Amino acid sequence: MFQQTEGGVTAAKGFFAASTAAGIKYKDRQDMAMVYSSVPCTVAGTFTTNMVKAAPVLWDKMIAEEKKTAQVVVINAGIANACTGEIGCSYCEETAKAASEALNVPYDMVFVASTGVIGKQLPIDKIKAGTKVLAGKLADSIEVGTDAAKAIMTTDTKKKEIAVSMTLGGKKVTLGGMCKGSGMIHPNMCTMLGFITTDANISKELLDKALKEDVQDTYNMVSVDGDTSTNDTVLLMANGLAENEKITSADSEDYKIFAAALHFINEYLAMRIAEDGEGATKLFTAKVINANSKAAAKVLAKSVITSSLTKAAVYGNDANWGRILCALGYSGEQFDPYKVDITITDGTDTLMLVENGMATDYSEEFATKILGGKEVTAIANMKDGDAEATAWGCDLTYDYVKINADYRS
Amino acid sequence: MFQQTEGGVTAAKGFFAASTAAGIKYKDRQDMAMVYSSVPCTVAGTFTTNMVKAAPVLWDKMIAEEKKTAQVVVINAGIANACTGEIGCSYCEETAKAASEALNVPYDMVFVASTGVIGKQLPIDKIKAGTKVLAGKLADSIEVGTDAAKAIMTTDTKKKEIAVSMTLGGKKVTLGGMCKGSGMIHPNMCTMLGFITTDANISKELLDKALKEDVQDTYNMVSVDGDTSTNDTVLLMANGLAENEKITSADSEDYKIFAAALHFINEYLAMRIAEDGEGATKLFTAKVINANSKAAAKVLAKSVITSSLTKAAVYGNDANWGRILCALGYSGEQFDPYKVDITITDGTDTLMLVENGMATDYSEEFATKILGGKEVTAIANMKDGDAEATAWGCDLTYDYVKINADYRS
Repeated sequence: MFQQTEGGVTAAKGFFAASTAAGIKYKDRQDMAMVYSSVPCTVAGTFTTNMVKAAPVLWDKMIAEEKKTAQVVVINAGIANACTGEIGCSYCEETAKAASEALNVPYDMVFVASTGVIGKQLPIDKIKAGTKVLAGKLADSIEVGTDAAKAIMTTDTKKKEIAVSMTLGGKKVTLGGMCKGSGMIHPNMCTMLGFITTDANISKELLDKALKEDVQDTYNMVSVDGDTSTNDTVLLMANGLAENEKITSADSEDYKIFAAALHFINEYLAMRIAEDGEGATKLFTAKVINANSKAAAKVLAKSVITSSLTKAAVYGNDANWGRILCALGYSGEQFDPYKVDITITDGTDTLMLVENGMATDYSEEFATKILGGKEVTAIANMKDGDAEATAWGCDLTYDYVKINADYRS
Repeated sequence: MFQQTEGGVTAAKGFFAASTAAGIKYKDRQDMAMVYSSVPCTVAGTFTTNMVKAAPVLWDKMIAEEKKTAQVVVINAGIANACTGEIGCSYCEETAKAASEALNVPYDMVFVASTGVIGKQLPIDKIKAGTKVLAGKLADSIEVGTDAAKAIMTTDTKKKEIAVSMTLGGKKVTLGGMCKGSGMIHPNMCTMLGFITTDANISKELLDKALKEDVQDTYNMVSVDGDTSTNDTVLLMANGLAENEKITSADSEDYKIFAAALHFINEYLAMRIAEDGEGATKLFTAKVINANSKAAAKVLAKSVITSSLTKAAVYGNDANWGRILCALGYSGEQFDPYKVDITITDGTDTLMLVENGMATDYSEEFATKILGGKEVTAIANMKDGDAEATAWGCDLTYDYVKINADYRS
């Protein structure tokens, strides 16, 4: 239906990127990036549900929901431009205007995104200077896309990007994305920034639908630490340059392929965020099966990957299944504990720890071996229906504490 | 109105205690305790809201809600008797019967309580033998009460007990309590066990009311790690031996004094649990003032003390107020971020970090000094009404991870 291809945000036709070291917070590393489409894009966006919304979130929401088209994104790492009042809002506009002048694009077609510490004002002169540098460096190679994915990192340890291509109505359509996110990650689009570009020709309505529905099952099922950020943003930009027949019906085969490809991208990026959680040594996935509803399955799965005690046990390779059952129990969902089975797997080996709510006669040694893998999944079989959901998190480690006890310094 | 007095569960007239090393899990330490009243008590209990309820919770709930009187509590540390099925339930009954035989008390007037690892069966022979030893050692000195408070500890580092006395209708009435709780602590009565004894003469109805209302503002406002245990239990036993005129009206002065004294005990014990959170180096209190409702104030305060990022910053003495504002923002309550003031205090010095949602020109050095105290309070002024609430937590440290990465081993 679709296949993975090289690169990220510059994989699709007509998309350019650039990155630069603007000296915003970090020394000796790139900390600003730009994504640019040679023609205006139909856009969709999803944003944090935190009552405290950073200035760029307000700006981008206005563009995605009212203007509905955009051509540029300017991103900085280091300072979040959150809790910065009217000054913070005016800095979004100033940044957009700097990009507008340099690229001859209306300023209200310029998204801005920020990530980093809350409460500090942006060094706006550096941001404006950086924006002009970025505009002058734009290129469409795979490499500049990768560099952009690196420039938006904060406490991330790995850049996160992916692209896929598919054939729609005889035309090659490409979808690529990058994201960042490591701390302050929780269900509602949390200090993660995601940027997905595509040359697909698709209506605004379906672009919105595809993004909003899929975010619920991907990024919103990730939690690193339970803290929902002020800045979470995912932007999807479609410039139509693939020249496929415009996708306008949710029932069409083309829409289904596009939505499946978008899901693949989002799920991949969401898993990379979980795995690269602050201080994490492994990806910890909770899969709930045979629940009585999809909504219940999601709440149950998220409760497991959010449990500090479970996460610490996963770090210690300790098959402390009681903490998993306990986390299911306090999730708020109703179920019969004495029907639940819990199985763990590292992708190769599988071991049932709990059958009907009680311990099986499993080998602790074998359980510890499985938990020692880099990707550990706990599967809870509720035997209460046929709904399922997956949530992604990571282990809780000394390094999480270390990183966050002095993140600002 | 009332004054603090010496001791804990044995402070009130007619209450005896004992402790012993039954060899349940720990070596070289006492791990079982008993509390006994020379006459039957009116009792009230509050229990975990986790769907997964440990066997002793089911047993005690039955006694507190159906039988309504009890005379003995048998407690063990090391194994929680949770997720243990019918065998676990039968072990509660066997323990109660052992106490019944030794003390000549009906077995359905014997509470049992367990704390420790989930999923293992109790070594019932050791428990029964320990129960008989406890029955033979009962004494009413202050010291045995203190020893009992030590015997119920798991990862706790400090015993937690307190007592107060008051005069009701010319009679001296005493109220004493002990509790344990360190990990798996979260709003809904979480692996904390609390036992409060009083010689007050009070109706079952008012005993229930006093306990249930006060738990909402005390233990349920504590969070160490967001995990709600399967075993949380608070039991309040009143034997009437103070011979005060029976308290039967919630409007009476005597009830008000009793309820205030109970609140003092519960708040003290709740704060001790927070401060002794697994790995904690300090008590971290969040006080929300001028919120638009009491319910909102509670949710906001709890959101702050539950935030992993905020807790890690408190550990690092880092005045990262953005994380506090962020935690208020994702709490689910509605408010205007640009009205909020945030102040920190160590009880001596006070510093406003945020005014109307934005940073004040505060000294980082002074903020770090305040955060370096053993008891740090963050006050959020919502300027949106006149309701307030307080929640208690602790910092997130390396030791929390260490303790929980190999708690079972």
